[in-house]
Amino acid sequence: MFPNVLEVARALIKERVRAGETVIDATMGNGNDTLFLAQLVQESGRVIAFDIQPLAMEKTKERLVREGVADRVEMRLVSHEEIQSLQERVGAIMFNLGYLPGGDKEITTQAASTIRAIESGLKLLRPGGIMTVMIYWGHSAGQVEKDAVESFCQMLSQMDYLVLKYQYINQQNQAPFLLAVERRGE
Amino acid sequence: MFPNVLEVARALIKERVRAGETVIDATMGNGNDTLFLAQLVQESGRVIAFDIQPLAMEKTKERLVREGVADRVEMRLVSHEEIQSLQERVGAIMFNLGYLPGGDKEITTQAASTIRAIESGLKLLRPGGIMTVMIYWGHSAGQVEKDAVESFCQMLSQMDYLVLKYQYINQQNQAPFLLAVERRGE
Repeated sequence: MFPNVLEVARALIKERVRAGETVIDATMGNGNDTLFLAQLVQESGRVIAFDIQPLAMEKTKERLVREGVADRVEMRLVSHEEIQSLQERVGAIMFNLGYLPGGDKEITTQAASTIRAIESGLKLLRPGGIMTVMIYWGHSAGQVEKDAVESFCQMLSQMDYLVLKYQYINQQNQAPFLLAVERRGE
Repeated sequence: MFPNVLEVARALIKERVRAGETVIDATMGNGNDTLFLAQLVQESGRVIAFDIQPLAMEKTKERLVREGVADRVEMRLVSHEEIQSLQERVGAIMFNLGYLPGGDKEITTQAASTIRAIESGLKLLRPGGIMTVMIYWGHSAGQVEKDAVESFCQMLSQMDYLVLKYQYINQQNQAPFLLAVERRGE
């Protein structure tokens, strides 16, 4: 069977990220990806993780502590737009666009700030590094955000980036799909 | 680096096809996929290959003979619509939509007959089997065919099939993309 889109995102990241690297989780949510990334970069690596919701940060922290990897994760309770304040080269950046599962569905990522966060993040990617953007667009602001992100990524120079759209197209209910952006040059 | 779309199609097929199976090359072209499939099913397997152009059949035959796999390939100089005359269960079907590379660019696959061929082919797929459709749409009838095939595949029941669209979206010149349809139930 074809893998689900989240499995595809993780497989692409796993192929590219090295132990000891710095990576970014742009949207902590319930901490699934934060934990995945923390285990991937191992003890010598570092994860910088963003979320604006205290509930997301609490849930994530709890998981990281339970799994014994909290030391290598730097959690920031600010918008992923704050990626722009970072300077370091990173191997991977993960976004999950939409709302916090189990949280307030009215609090969602928004097109304008998401685009700014993606733009800042792409500048941090090392050659061969990857950004994955899971687009859950079954919410009120979702269609606008989906179109904005897709248009933005379509315009990226093919000299510098390769943008993959991976989507199961015979699904109902606005199934999530994946955009993956690879920085060329390795 | 992300693989190119043809490499993705072949990898998906390779994961699923077993030695000894029957498979179909709906569009022989220069015989690249025919050869790939013939090697994959091995000596006990069988490839049924279609093309309407004598030039395509000659080129393909030459390659198969040179590689010593012609015995297991049944070449048919008719439209891929004739897939409807087949009865056997198959593990994989490959389509390359467009024109014959190095041939007459005015002779291309066409929306209506392509849809009929795809529809007939899907009925032959065994559970777990796969159809790949490489869509080269940078020719005069290409846009219409692309839209028709994509619409048709979007409508396939998600109970019976899973349709993957795999596309690099920041490319110029109407870059080819891949549709892959997996028959559920294995």
